[in-house]
Amino acid sequence: MTTLVFGHKSPDTDSTGSPIIWAWYLNEVKGQEAEAVLLGEPNTEAAFMLERWDLPKPRIITNVDDDQPCIVVDTNNPAELPTNINGADVRGIIDHHKLVGGLETKGPIDIRIEPLACTATIMYKMIDKDMAQAPTWVKGAMLTCILSDTLAFRSPTTTQEDEAIAWGLAKDLDLDPHAYADEMFAAKSDVSAFSDAELIRMDSKEYEVGGTKFRVSVLETTAPATVLERKDSLMASMADVAKEDDVDQVLLFVVDILNEEATLLVPNDLVKGVVEKSFGASVAGDTVVLPGVMSRKKQIIPNLAV
Amino acid sequence: MTTLVFGHKSPDTDSTGSPIIWAWYLNEVKGQEAEAVLLGEPNTEAAFMLERWDLPKPRIITNVDDDQPCIVVDTNNPAELPTNINGADVRGIIDHHKLVGGLETKGPIDIRIEPLACTATIMYKMIDKDMAQAPTWVKGAMLTCILSDTLAFRSPTTTQEDEAIAWGLAKDLDLDPHAYADEMFAAKSDVSAFSDAELIRMDSKEYEVGGTKFRVSVLETTAPATVLERKDSLMASMADVAKEDDVDQVLLFVVDILNEEATLLVPNDLVKGVVEKSFGASVAGDTVVLPGVMSRKKQIIPNLAV
Repeated sequence: MTTLVFGHKSPDTDSTGSPIIWAWYLNEVKGQEAEAVLLGEPNTEAAFMLERWDLPKPRIITNVDDDQPCIVVDTNNPAELPTNINGADVRGIIDHHKLVGGLETKGPIDIRIEPLACTATIMYKMIDKDMAQAPTWVKGAMLTCILSDTLAFRSPTTTQEDEAIAWGLAKDLDLDPHAYADEMFAAKSDVSAFSDAELIRMDSKEYEVGGTKFRVSVLETTAPATVLERKDSLMASMADVAKEDDVDQVLLFVVDILNEEATLLVPNDLVKGVVEKSFGASVAGDTVVLPGVMSRKKQIIPNLAV
Repeated sequence: MTTLVFGHKSPDTDSTGSPIIWAWYLNEVKGQEAEAVLLGEPNTEAAFMLERWDLPKPRIITNVDDDQPCIVVDTNNPAELPTNINGADVRGIIDHHKLVGGLETKGPIDIRIEPLACTATIMYKMIDKDMAQAPTWVKGAMLTCILSDTLAFRSPTTTQEDEAIAWGLAKDLDLDPHAYADEMFAAKSDVSAFSDAELIRMDSKEYEVGGTKFRVSVLETTAPATVLERKDSLMASMADVAKEDDVDQVLLFVVDILNEEATLLVPNDLVKGVVEKSFGASVAGDTVVLPGVMSRKKQIIPNLAV
């Protein structure tokens, strides 16, 4: 049976590109039948990657059958995976997030989780010498994933390995990584087509802190003004999204990639308290700027306090 | 703070040797402070390994403190780890078992799980070129772990990688792996010092099948007769152990390493039914021989039915 390779729901660039890269490796190098699939529509940056490297958009699936062979990439969190993931036959996990617990496998499997910025970086290391066989589009997808997850080396999640591998790929592809990243971020920053609720859910993860359930949403953009001019309707939408998704509060961080800071929307006293406790910032008005904050994983989640 | 490296409770050879190997690697190659510890007394084969390679017995710990940096090897199952494992700071997992779920980490970590027979084989691959710096005792511990987990290449869990790496190590050490394994298995087979309950719990894992909780115990030996002559008192003890450990039934498989078969003790109709359903064997009397059965992971657990 063909092995399905997929990342998390609401696929970003790494969760779109990494399955494509790994399916190539399994099919072309390892001689194993594999298909990259998506758990939803790719975001605008991921869509840009598909177009830029002439990649067909993977099929979108909504669930997995019992005993379906699967390889999960860019997450190990059952909440971000199909409902029936523990009924499927998960044969591999390649990820760079903390171990959440809850995912089970039917047999001994291949798991590789490393504290790097990007799944594609881990895949590059695993593919190793066989990268010599990689076509241009595999290298292009890898580079795009790494530049996306590191915000072009600005994010504090960036490691020397991510950076060195990205520069090597860029050299092979004869691309200036910073100029290419600007194109990517421009694509990601065009959010005009999305509703407020879609923007809030686009890059969002649920966390519970001290009994309060948060949906922590991040919007990485080179044009924060185009998001912030919608702040009133975004704040109105946050309450609806929270109710629909059964969380207590949405936190929406608008990350300014170029200026390396985040603006958090502060719709109420709960969020105001969270800002003060988590980031030691004082709030006046309905937004607060957090200098240097770019990474949910490294800077937001570890500090979150109620 | 010194990182603690440990395997599972009731440490066998791999759960004793692998922490020692990895602590060497962290201390001597990576320059990180690490200490190998044990979650209980090593079994007789593991004790033989310590003596044979002149290794000091690691300190035995009973729990881990909050935020204690840890690396977990040879298991990913919280039930086989200290009670407070999810309060500790688990920074790495190296294992060859299926993902059980339940173990969580505070941050992104290094996880490497591969479907090989032995944790030490994975470590050999990870240490890679730095094996050139490995002292004799590290190679000796690695070889012992691989021969133990593969039952000297007889177990169906054995992969080509395990076998190739073990032969390479044996060559370096100028040892005949089969002659050396015979010494190891003789040490393991001397169970005269252990009570029935100790024998039952020595290499034992809990599994639930169709609502029935089993403690699946394996005794690998080159002298099955010395175990089987104690079968009446062992069967009497099984009921007590089951009650104390809150499981419904103990299954005790006496694995004859040299003849490549297992003898299962059949104290009651529940076990008789399990044998018939799981292995298609018919039972007459209070033992049943299962030809070819050597591996709990590959042959017993996947077939277990009630």
